[in-house]
Amino acid sequence: MTDMLYVLDLLGTIAFAASGALTGVRKQMDLLGVIMLGIVTATGGGVLRDVLMNDLPPFCFKNELYLYLAVGTSLLVFITPRRFEQQRNLLLMLDALGLGTFAVIGTMKALTYHLGFMGAIIMGVMTATCGGLVRDVLCNDIPLILQREIYASACIVGCTALYVMNLYSFPQAASLTVSAAIVIAIRCIAILRGWHLPRKFLQN
Amino acid sequence: MTDMLYVLDLLGTIAFAASGALTGVRKQMDLLGVIMLGIVTATGGGVLRDVLMNDLPPFCFKNELYLYLAVGTSLLVFITPRRFEQQRNLLLMLDALGLGTFAVIGTMKALTYHLGFMGAIIMGVMTATCGGLVRDVLCNDIPLILQREIYASACIVGCTALYVMNLYSFPQAASLTVSAAIVIAIRCIAILRGWHLPRKFLQN
Amino acid sequence: MTDMLYVLDLLGTIAFAASGALTGVRKQMDLLGVIMLGIVTATGGGVLRDVLMNDLPPFCFKNELYLYLAVGTSLLVFITPRRFEQQRNLLLMLDALGLGTFAVIGTMKALTYHLGFMGAIIMGVMTATCGGLVRDVLCNDIPLILQREIYASACIVGCTALYVMNLYSFPQAASLTVSAAIVIAIRCIAILRGWHLPRKFLQN
Repeated sequence: MTDMLYVLDLLGTIAFAASGALTGVRKQMDLLGVIMLGIVTATGGGVLRDVLMNDLPPFCFKNELYLYLAVGTSLLVFITPRRFEQQRNLLLMLDALGLGTFAVIGTMKALTYHLGFMGAIIMGVMTATCGGLVRDVLCNDIPLILQREIYASACIVGCTALYVMNLYSFPQAASLTVSAAIVIAIRCIAILRGWHLPRKFLQN
Repeated sequence: MTDMLYVLDLLGTIAFAASGALTGVRKQMDLLGVIMLGIVTATGGGVLRDVLMNDLPPFCFKNELYLYLAVGTSLLVFITPRRFEQQRNLLLMLDALGLGTFAVIGTMKALTYHLGFMGAIIMGVMTATCGGLVRDVLCNDIPLILQREIYASACIVGCTALYVMNLYSFPQAASLTVSAAIVIAIRCIAILRGWHLPRKFLQN
Repeated sequence: MTDMLYVLDLLGTIAFAASGALTGVRKQMDLLGVIMLGIVTATGGGVLRDVLMNDLPPFCFKNELYLYLAVGTSLLVFITPRRFEQQRNLLLMLDALGLGTFAVIGTMKALTYHLGFMGAIIMGVMTATCGGLVRDVLCNDIPLILQREIYASACIVGCTALYVMNLYSFPQAASLTVSAAIVIAIRCIAILRGWHLPRKFLQN
């Protein structure tokens, strides 16, 4: 993994942990609940990916820096939640950054393990979104990614781009950068413009 | 796996995906949420079984036809949900078919891996019901199979029959057919007659 | 594993299964729902631990006594829920016992697999609490351990003690006994005194 990707991965971990911990504070969970929700949101997607691909123990138990970052961020959020709430735009940007990074890492790993097209896309989307999905399930909410906006769909576009570039043997560093940038760009534009996917209403 | 079982398995995948996607449409999820719910409902039970038995990556990543069928069915449901709603009886019948097929496939796999009696039953029930269970959890409902009717219990009868026939070395093709038929028959009769399991009311 | 730890492990399995089954009865689930909830609560934490550490099939499929105990206890609860409700204090005590035992077993296993400090703590806490967490998710409640009292935090103290004693090569039997006793003692005192962790209120 390139150094830049590793740095982005750690930044994404912090952003996702902050999102989980903030949700915990809003739901009036206790200190430990907030930390657990931070850890699960930050690492849940990657852990599920590693379980399905049998690369165990999962990544964050091999390099515990991910876990320490998640715990540290959650503690900070618990102590000063208002400071994080006020930085909503910064958090949204970091979250988009994490989304793109996690997605391309998941797809890259699927390609290394010789999964097919569906496997490559699903592992990418799963790595990027399943932490947040478990966060919502634990908080007794319907997962946001099933209902809302351009989030998982941004991952699908970027992961497909990575799959195609890999098929045509583009240099890996360039492919990773381009496809992560695609996810981040789509996600940011979608936030700014309020884009969302179509829904179906049975009463129509 | 016999050819007939494979065909039934694919039919069951379609039925389960339709059930998941229809739930998604009813819950007003967006296009991607509907597809995700279709995939999870159709493959979730088998994926969990493969994780617990360490046969990874899970079946649907080895043969992506399952995933393509789930995505295709979910797309159709999203486009014409009313057509599927109107075919309620056909879907219930296909669902019963999938229930029986998934259950015997799970139990057969547990027997191949030399699990004990409880393992054989649990793997069968899990393969057949955990996709629907995850669907309900993601939709923020208490899982139907914990509350309702003869569903998982039909699997238990069929899986026990398969376990016993395997113990007495019946020919495999016959055992699989008979035990899947048992599950399907019990489920269909239960639907027609409105059978259900006893509940306990603490205030009694 | 020492004989005493094995006996405590079985007692804890019974207590956790009773807790799951009682929740099922309260939520008016049917017979099979009650049994499933009993099994999941009693074995869910250990199964998740074994999945993440790749020791598969999980412990309860290698030694099905755990599953038979969970099913038997759940059946008893379903038949005479009032008798169990009346023994609330006995159940709380057995639950504390199970908490301590499950936690040290999880941490011990993580140490055997050479996980780091975070891994050792998380595997201990997960083994002790994730069965109850899945029980709450299936019942559509926000998990109790994210909100309430000294429960997972008692595990953290005991698991940290075990980690430190292992670091300084204390004899294993003594370390296990002491650290399990720490968890059980903290949990019991917390119940008696109504201790709980701090929460944060955003409106403050």
